[in-house]
Amino acid sequence: MTIWTHPFATIPTRADIDAAADRIRGHARRTPLLNAPLLDAEAGRRIWVKAECLQVTGSFKFRGAYAAISGLPDGDRARGVIAFSSGNHAQGIAHAAALHGIPAVIVMPSDAPTVKVANTRAYGAEVVTYARGSQDRDTLGAELAETRGLTLIKPFDDARVIAGQGTCGSEIGHDMPDGVDRVLVCCGGGGLTAGIALALQGRATVHPVEPEGYDDVARSLAAGAIQRNPAEAGGLCDAILTPQPGALTFGVMRDLCGPGAVVTEMQALRAMEAAWRHLRIVLEPGGAVALAAAMFGDGPDCVAVASGGNVDRAVFERALSI
Amino acid sequence: MTIWTHPFATIPTRADIDAAADRIRGHARRTPLLNAPLLDAEAGRRIWVKAECLQVTGSFKFRGAYAAISGLPDGDRARGVIAFSSGNHAQGIAHAAALHGIPAVIVMPSDAPTVKVANTRAYGAEVVTYARGSQDRDTLGAELAETRGLTLIKPFDDARVIAGQGTCGSEIGHDMPDGVDRVLVCCGGGGLTAGIALALQGRATVHPVEPEGYDDVARSLAAGAIQRNPAEAGGLCDAILTPQPGALTFGVMRDLCGPGAVVTEMQALRAMEAAWRHLRIVLEPGGAVALAAAMFGDGPDCVAVASGGNVDRAVFERALSI
Repeated sequence: MTIWTHPFATIPTRADIDAAADRIRGHARRTPLLNAPLLDAEAGRRIWVKAECLQVTGSFKFRGAYAAISGLPDGDRARGVIAFSSGNHAQGIAHAAALHGIPAVIVMPSDAPTVKVANTRAYGAEVVTYARGSQDRDTLGAELAETRGLTLIKPFDDARVIAGQGTCGSEIGHDMPDGVDRVLVCCGGGGLTAGIALALQGRATVHPVEPEGYDDVARSLAAGAIQRNPAEAGGLCDAILTPQPGALTFGVMRDLCGPGAVVTEMQALRAMEAAWRHLRIVLEPGGAVALAAAMFGDGPDCVAVASGGNVDRAVFERALSI
Repeated sequence: MTIWTHPFATIPTRADIDAAADRIRGHARRTPLLNAPLLDAEAGRRIWVKAECLQVTGSFKFRGAYAAISGLPDGDRARGVIAFSSGNHAQGIAHAAALHGIPAVIVMPSDAPTVKVANTRAYGAEVVTYARGSQDRDTLGAELAETRGLTLIKPFDDARVIAGQGTCGSEIGHDMPDGVDRVLVCCGGGGLTAGIALALQGRATVHPVEPEGYDDVARSLAAGAIQRNPAEAGGLCDAILTPQPGALTFGVMRDLCGPGAVVTEMQALRAMEAAWRHLRIVLEPGGAVALAAAMFGDGPDCVAVASGGNVDRAVFERALSI
């Protein structure tokens, strides 16, 4: 089962990020860095928002997915890819595979929300479900991968994926004003945070931002070693609720990032409302935590990455009603 | 009262649009041309959306406002500008004037929504209100302009403003795929439509899109002469409800545009929902009519201009609930 120990387990270089940028050009979107004078007035500082919710498939995940698939050896790529996800990674992989004309199998729990299953299928992927609790996800995936020769694309702890997410950081570095050197990033497993930190090394300090109760990265950085979240109770910021940082991503963040920040779900919802009102973009709670930290935390002017906008109507309306 | 017969009453040229683009560069935003595979699947055609809701102050109006103010003779500009508007033009003028460090007076009816008055003030303008019915708006404005030496910036029938809106068309021409030659534009007085038509002359056919009951431009184009709307009952698409096209804008549209399209308010609301779900952008009803025509009308692949996103929460939630 060699697919589980893939050969891309080393930290990507700036050259890897540049190569990923070349591969995704014309497929991924170069997202705008937005700002608004009335948002700045409300926050008491200037904030530039990297609008990754406008990325193809609605989140930054498409960057890593397309970069990873386009970087596979031709023979491996032709056989197809497999991913475990019911969220933004699934949609990114499904669409990136479709653009390459290759098969994609997405493994999801059978109780995944209908709309997520439908969207992933609409992008052209085959969805295989497993019964949470009674069926082992990894065994099922390994069997599928071996039978069909599929390559696993992990959601964050993969150098090809991190290099792809790093292209977001390169764009920020190009667009951000001189004198600004603080970048806040919504952080789950750390793929986006690590990629941006690598791209902006020497130019800006990157801070991961997490929701209250899921601050494994902030605590890991403070402790100097990987810490887990005590519970996995779920929550509004589902896109970035991971049990712990990856081995690769933690190494990068430990070496390059500033301290992590933590926001409440209520602050994330208020940031969604502010993004709707001042920037006219749609964010999901997990994609709004960096903006929340920029608005409600301390510190000088900054860039906040708005990482995704795949949100249910009920949650969005709750944000607007606050 | 020479300000009412300003010297910019001739049709702008492509060179005027290029000059406006040079003046607004670094101040107005170069907005992205968005698309989404799932939106295309739903519509049955490919649609590229020019997201002017992401423009500074939330609508394309900032382009014309900044272009007009930056193009004034220095002495006139220093004395300040005046505009009649309670909507997107007001916010565009207020912010453009603030960026130039000059006074702006915005004349609004005293029953204008509080949030619009507050926003216009927050951008730094002086708001002067008049009692609708008992006070003559034009007399009040003329007195203010004469006393203070302010220059009137009209919302659409002004060559400097049309040239500024034309910069949106130049960007579309640069970004749109080869083979696409149909551009749908939300149309009120026709400043944006005329500007885009001038910029895309020979490259694409521009069609104005209006809401049902306010199809003065479509009927004017069909008749070959300016037609008025029978009533001014108001409606959801308030940003583009004008009694008739301007003299300048109608001349351009008559010479360059294809037939107008008309959509219902319900279709505009459904387009707002689709933009929220598939593109993660926030549109107001008047800013969504072109996308509505692209989604629900006939015809080949096209560009739809999403002209603005300054929308009340109640109206936005109504769109999401449809």
